Amino acid sequence: MHSRVILKVFGLLLMVYSISLLPPIMVGLYYQDGGLNSFTSVMIGVLLTGLFIWYPVRNHSRDLKIRDGFIIVVMFWVVLGLAGAIPFFLDEDVPLSLTDSIFESFSGLTTTGATVITGLDNLPHAFLWYRQQLQWLGGMGIIVLAVAILPMLGIGGMQLYRAETPGPIKDSKIAPRISETAKALWYIYLGLTLACAIGYWLAGMNWFDAFSHSFSTVAIGGFSTHDASIAYFDSIEVEIVAIVFMLLSGINFALHFTAFRSLSGYAYFRDPEFKAYAALLFGASLVAVAYLYFQEVYDSWYDAVRYGLFQTVSLATTTGFANADFSIWPGFLPIMLIFMSFIGGSAGSTAGGMKVIRFVLLFKQGMREVNGLLHPNAIMPVKLSGKTIPEKVMMAVWGFLAVYVFTFALLMLVIMALGVDQVTAFSAMAATMNNLGPGLGEVAANYQALSDPVKWVLTFAMLLGRLEIFTLLVLFTAAFWRK
Amino acid sequence: MHSRVILKVFGLLLMVYSISLLPPIMVGLYYQDGGLNSFTSVMIGVLLTGLFIWYPVRNHSRDLKIRDGFIIVVMFWVVLGLAGAIPFFLDEDVPLSLTDSIFESFSGLTTTGATVITGLDNLPHAFLWYRQQLQWLGGMGIIVLAVAILPMLGIGGMQLYRAETPGPIKDSKIAPRISETAKALWYIYLGLTLACAIGYWLAGMNWFDAFSHSFSTVAIGGFSTHDASIAYFDSIEVEIVAIVFMLLSGINFALHFTAFRSLSGYAYFRDPEFKAYAALLFGASLVAVAYLYFQEVYDSWYDAVRYGLFQTVSLATTTGFANADFSIWPGFLPIMLIFMSFIGGSAGSTAGGMKVIRFVLLFKQGMREVNGLLHPNAIMPVKLSGKTIPEKVMMAVWGFLAVYVFTFALLMLVIMALGVDQVTAFSAMAATMNNLGPGLGEVAANYQALSDPVKWVLTFAMLLGRLEIFTLLVLFTAAFWRK
Ligand SMILES: [K+]
Ligand SMILES: [K+]
Repeated sequence: MHSRVILKVFGLLLMVYSISLLPPIMVGLYYQDGGLNSFTSVMIGVLLTGLFIWYPVRNHSRDLKIRDGFIIVVMFWVVLGLAGAIPFFLDEDVPLSLTDSIFESFSGLTTTGATVITGLDNLPHAFLWYRQQLQWLGGMGIIVLAVAILPMLGIGGMQLYRAETPGPIKDSKIAPRISETAKALWYIYLGLTLACAIGYWLAGMNWFDAFSHSFSTVAIGGFSTHDASIAYFDSIEVEIVAIVFMLLSGINFALHFTAFRSLSGYAYFRDPEFKAYAALLFGASLVAVAYLYFQEVYDSWYDAVRYGLFQTVSLATTTGFANADFSIWPGFLPIMLIFMSFIGGSAGSTAGGMKVIRFVLLFKQGMREVNGLLHPNAIMPVKLSGKTIPEKVMMAVWGFLAVYVFTFALLMLVIMALGVDQVTAFSAMAATMNNLGPGLGEVAANYQALSDPVKWVLTFAMLLGRLEIFTLLVLFTAAFWRK
Repeated sequence: MHSRVILKVFGLLLMVYSISLLPPIMVGLYYQDGGLNSFTSVMIGVLLTGLFIWYPVRNHSRDLKIRDGFIIVVMFWVVLGLAGAIPFFLDEDVPLSLTDSIFESFSGLTTTGATVITGLDNLPHAFLWYRQQLQWLGGMGIIVLAVAILPMLGIGGMQLYRAETPGPIKDSKIAPRISETAKALWYIYLGLTLACAIGYWLAGMNWFDAFSHSFSTVAIGGFSTHDASIAYFDSIEVEIVAIVFMLLSGINFALHFTAFRSLSGYAYFRDPEFKAYAALLFGASLVAVAYLYFQEVYDSWYDAVRYGLFQTVSLATTTGFANADFSIWPGFLPIMLIFMSFIGGSAGSTAGGMKVIRFVLLFKQGMREVNGLLHPNAIMPVKLSGKTIPEKVMMAVWGFLAVYVFTFALLMLVIMALGVDQVTAFSAMAATMNNLGPGLGEVAANYQALSDPVKWVLTFAMLLGRLEIFTLLVLFTAAFWRK
């Protein structure tokens, strides 16, 4: 890839970002409670920078190849993550250091939702809107990444979701099909966001909160405009709307598209990943609710269901909203919910984690291995909906799992070496790498207390998780940069 | 498998076990400090029981098939583990409950080395000898299991070590080859044990301690005749002998055999697993020693090397001896050493953990996956010493890793639900499933404080780890019991 094309993409990304500052500015104009200056100056500054970079190379173009796909995907998150940090750093309403600004920005854009800010309730509306919108834009990026790009690049077995029939992949011209797919999915994303905002409004939120929270719900982000998160509203209606849209956003968007086109819910119930997703959430909720009731954390079934169900859905889909402080729940429950975030939502959704489909394949393969011990000569490929999964895909899924576990362990050791205790280190790694948000121990609600080096490692972990590790890792191989 | 053959094996195992009580009785006769009564009565009781069970079915015989292999292997550990608990339960010198007796017996036999006994230093010699000998017998079982049986059964990719050239496995008559292999390896095991005992004696131990500790060193067991473990001797010479024989016992015994037969160390340096084993231990020791020195845990390089090297080798080989309390070392070091026990020693050794060879394959596959992203159509099989690893083997290794991680997480949640805190739960699970022994938190030195249900789960975990999970899991499948 020519450096000129990189420059062009870089300039374009900056310009797109600067335009994304218009809505916060409009919000600021409406509420007149601050933040206008910084957003306006950042918008103009970044727009001009982008223009200067883009203009000289604007006519340069080239067919995109697989290799370029990796660079653009990584650039998308890194450039927007860094540019997104500027308002956090410059704004006078929150005293964020450079490290904190970058942490908060990446946490927003990767839809992780871990925050270093306290006192959200008193911040200017423009600022809060910007923060929520970062998650929403990140969600748009993820949809395209997950449904169109990762399958194309074959990350961690995701070639499974390639649209075309099996066969050699054409190593060129990937751009047109991506933009087609993207358009269709963004309509669904937009539709879900609108429906969710209306739902929140009907449940009693004002329009500002309704839209703000719909952004972070549909993006499975988890940012809120209140320190207390969803618990601020103390409304069962709001919580029901949140549960419904968290669940919907954790489903493969390509599946939503199929269902929408055929105007039938049949597609869902034929999909093995959806069935596993539903079963896992149902099972985990059941365990959580029963445990909360019988351990007498809540003295009515109503409360046990209300808090147990919400938190299970919030953590298992990797959203990270809170209507209760799950980190102080007794026994194994907090860890079980953190474990659920490793599985995460469906592939092709805005959720984080390793994705349900990979665990379905893993489970099937595990069963085959056990049965295969008795019939060592039999060939028993893994099947999904009657179709045989190629060994190549299975290998990629295993490779993904192994690299995920290994990276997790390594980074956990690193932050422990930087002084974090074991409980906090484990949950902070899970919360960032699975793009979940809240953790346990010191990071149950807020990441402010951690040291700068730890925040950098966690920021890196968010990016690793979001890019499904391999997309980022491949840039560090010698082969990648060989001509 | 006919129930009569099961009975015959059952009776034989009991008789073999009862004969194994002769040495402790002889030790008791020599020292005259107690334990004689209980051992003698257990010996006679178990011998007669075994005889009564075995006699009526003694002439029954049948060719062993793969299915029978699983039953016999599981019976070996379960029957000996339960019988081995009897002296702990009956002896009056230690007040062990039934649960504790079974925990201690399985911990010995699986060479885990976790203990519920305190006040070892004051126990009768017969009793101490018995405990050490349990580990040594367990080690003999593991050698055969790991070198001959797991490869035959194809557990977790271990068909890699099958002696014959690739091709269909004959589903019959596995017994003769096993007994041949076993004999050769037991000579090596015996030789190592003798050499280790002499080493300890030369280093200053008395003969009793020298043999006792050589048993638990070569078996990678970690039991000691003193509460303070190896630290009791406070002798650099003893520690050096321990390090050398822990290292030797963590190497594939088939490799020792090859080297012995060819009278050359060349075989080691050609073996990819040995090279990785050496590199991992070297790397981890380096990190530990440097961290201990620069964190000023020890104020001389001499002490940092002495304690850092010993504990790294002890934990990474899953032995579990202690010359220092590593659980109170600062930062990430305790967790890093616990993590090392997941890798464990080499396949075909007495060590626990997932085995180095599986991590070598995993790492190679991970690298291939990353490089394969750039060349999605290239076929790049994993090679080891120039030989292609069949996909079937790779699948089995991945399946093993996944089931290991999943079982670990599940059992950890179970013991947390039973009231164990997170740090203790994680390390206790690692210490038992990896057949390591010591953990962190409440189980840094002793498992006495845990509740009975937790001890049962941990006992099960020891067995799961020792039998490489699948061997036990397969018995729970419907297909196994189908005619
Ligand atoms: K999130
Ligand atoms: K051990």
